[in-house]
Amino acid sequence: MTTVGILGGGQLARMLALSGAPLGLRFLVMDTQPDACAGQFAPLLVGDYRDEAALAEFASKIDVATFDFENVPAESAKWLSERVPVFPNPRALGLIQDRLAEKTLFRDTGIPVPAFADVTSREGLDAAIAQVGMPCILKTRRLGYDGKGQFRIRPGTGEATADAAWAALGAQAQTVGLILEAFVPFERELSVVAVRGRDGEFRTWPLTENWHVDGVLSASLAPARVDDALAATAFDYARRLAGELDYVGVFALELFQHGGDLLANELAPRVHNSGHWSHEGAETSQFQNHLRAVLGRPLGATTMRGHACMLNWIGELPDPDPVLRAAGAHWHDYGKSSRPGRKVGHATVRTDSVTGLAQVLERVGAELGRDAQVAPVIARLREG
Amino acid sequence: MTTVGILGGGQLARMLALSGAPLGLRFLVMDTQPDACAGQFAPLLVGDYRDEAALAEFASKIDVATFDFENVPAESAKWLSERVPVFPNPRALGLIQDRLAEKTLFRDTGIPVPAFADVTSREGLDAAIAQVGMPCILKTRRLGYDGKGQFRIRPGTGEATADAAWAALGAQAQTVGLILEAFVPFERELSVVAVRGRDGEFRTWPLTENWHVDGVLSASLAPARVDDALAATAFDYARRLAGELDYVGVFALELFQHGGDLLANELAPRVHNSGHWSHEGAETSQFQNHLRAVLGRPLGATTMRGHACMLNWIGELPDPDPVLRAAGAHWHDYGKSSRPGRKVGHATVRTDSVTGLAQVLERVGAELGRDAQVAPVIARLREG
Repeated sequence: MTTVGILGGGQLARMLALSGAPLGLRFLVMDTQPDACAGQFAPLLVGDYRDEAALAEFASKIDVATFDFENVPAESAKWLSERVPVFPNPRALGLIQDRLAEKTLFRDTGIPVPAFADVTSREGLDAAIAQVGMPCILKTRRLGYDGKGQFRIRPGTGEATADAAWAALGAQAQTVGLILEAFVPFERELSVVAVRGRDGEFRTWPLTENWHVDGVLSASLAPARVDDALAATAFDYARRLAGELDYVGVFALELFQHGGDLLANELAPRVHNSGHWSHEGAETSQFQNHLRAVLGRPLGATTMRGHACMLNWIGELPDPDPVLRAAGAHWHDYGKSSRPGRKVGHATVRTDSVTGLAQVLERVGAELGRDAQVAPVIARLREG
Repeated sequence: MTTVGILGGGQLARMLALSGAPLGLRFLVMDTQPDACAGQFAPLLVGDYRDEAALAEFASKIDVATFDFENVPAESAKWLSERVPVFPNPRALGLIQDRLAEKTLFRDTGIPVPAFADVTSREGLDAAIAQVGMPCILKTRRLGYDGKGQFRIRPGTGEATADAAWAALGAQAQTVGLILEAFVPFERELSVVAVRGRDGEFRTWPLTENWHVDGVLSASLAPARVDDALAATAFDYARRLAGELDYVGVFALELFQHGGDLLANELAPRVHNSGHWSHEGAETSQFQNHLRAVLGRPLGATTMRGHACMLNWIGELPDPDPVLRAAGAHWHDYGKSSRPGRKVGHATVRTDSVTGLAQVLERVGAELGRDAQVAPVIARLREG
């Protein structure tokens, strides 16, 4: 009997446990919140990730550890890795937690990346803006996600915007650090969801196109409607990064497409929202393959079954019935309470044809009053 | 928040909970055994189904009840149904628990059934043999499953066999009752897995062919390689029975094909082993549709994705790696300990083509040393 420990007990841990059950695994989830939604289907240990007694209890009950949450303190991951195997490895996790180290890794691995600069002071911000150019975005180096801890600086607004950016985030320059990144006027946001086994075997799911609203993922389409050469380049970037980090498990590499170029945005060291469609849309889901990788078992096929679109439910769930009624549509309620900005569920529509996918999305979007959410996906599908 | 209570905590309850989680449901499983495998992924209430205090606690914590196990005492189901909605309804459950009532229902609904007779005494057995003919099978009316509680009577063996059958089962004539059934020299065993909603909506998955070894299901193939007219007849039988019973939820109707005829064998009032392939092989699995039906939600599409074969693991699990490595193959470990005759897991192979299915089965069968288990399925697939 193998027990997998998961640090973080949100929807990713929940879906890992549900998908790992058929492998005969047991799970133990650790979270700071007693109502963490993974706790509805797996034993939950409530504790602070920095509390060594809690971590020791966690370690004593598991055979291997992994993450639903990339902002687990790197020291805690390292402490844990001295007691049980931890995948992905804490060095990779620590590096990715720091946007500056992450972008530097992209650059050093030969992967195109938007211009960026370290920012440690108000004067440093001006120098960074001069170096990187406008528009640009001031971000915290650590602990940011879903558009949180970001401030956009537009051209033509002069000193006032830099002042405002500093007022918003400057205090964090000495705590989590700041980085200034060029804003790329991209045509598409794409992601590679990939898995690497303990033996180095590497597989990717088809490239996915993503649409964000207010910095939060709204919809994903797989396979992305791009040419094979572009997809091959994206897969090559993911493969190189995984090798460089000696990564084990699933990760997502987010990319911007700008003309014929791909620029790396960030790497998420875990199963990823843009891979949720794989649950119904691929032969093996990202969740089960993550566990297979972490356990050193053979990886499953990542081939698609037709075409899939994932729609995120943010803040609150819509009426499930239009989704439950639609052939090819699948409902995922994470068992969380409603809260503005919170990811509370998603739906995946999977069909055999592109035309069919557009039709189901149009109907479901209309029935839910969410035409705006499905519109960009339908437009992409109808580009031909 | 809706909590579904499941009476019985085996692999069916486990797969119901895992498949129902995305609907945002909570579960409470009741079982007599503290190590019931569904308890690994859902809260478990340990108690006897006849213990009213335990049943009252169960009822107080759930919104609706259903079954993983058809031999829950009908009185317990009825007691429960006076407190919470119970699906399928206790009348249907009680009727199906009695082979004599079940066969009578088949006959009264105009569904062909092998000859049968009630047996209450040793002399009655002789009369029943004269009426039903040989070969025939003496069975307990209640509490039999997977070939348990059965004794086959072959022609030409005279009184000795009837004596032996009576010696084996006669004592049960006054407890659970006995029934004598004609043995049908069938060519195929088929099953209809079907679902009926609270509103009477009725759907079936494609017809499935089944192979048994020692009375226990060994392999299932879907869709069965039969002509459409035969499948339509089978679906019609299932629809009539479901209506007759005012059935809500998933059930399986087991049939014997003998020439161009279909004879009803038995109805299982729950998700069924011969429908496990639907987890990967159908748009909506029997597990999720059972819950949708029980909750009065829209039923999901039961259309197939390609071709699927389920292989049962009895007694102990084989090496999972050949299955994990094979594209299209999926592993299901129920988290149970090994024990002779016990269902401990299954694998489903799903492919787009019949040829591909035969190839994967052949390879997996060889790698597992289970050529005999896959052979009849491969032979059927290659009949053309």
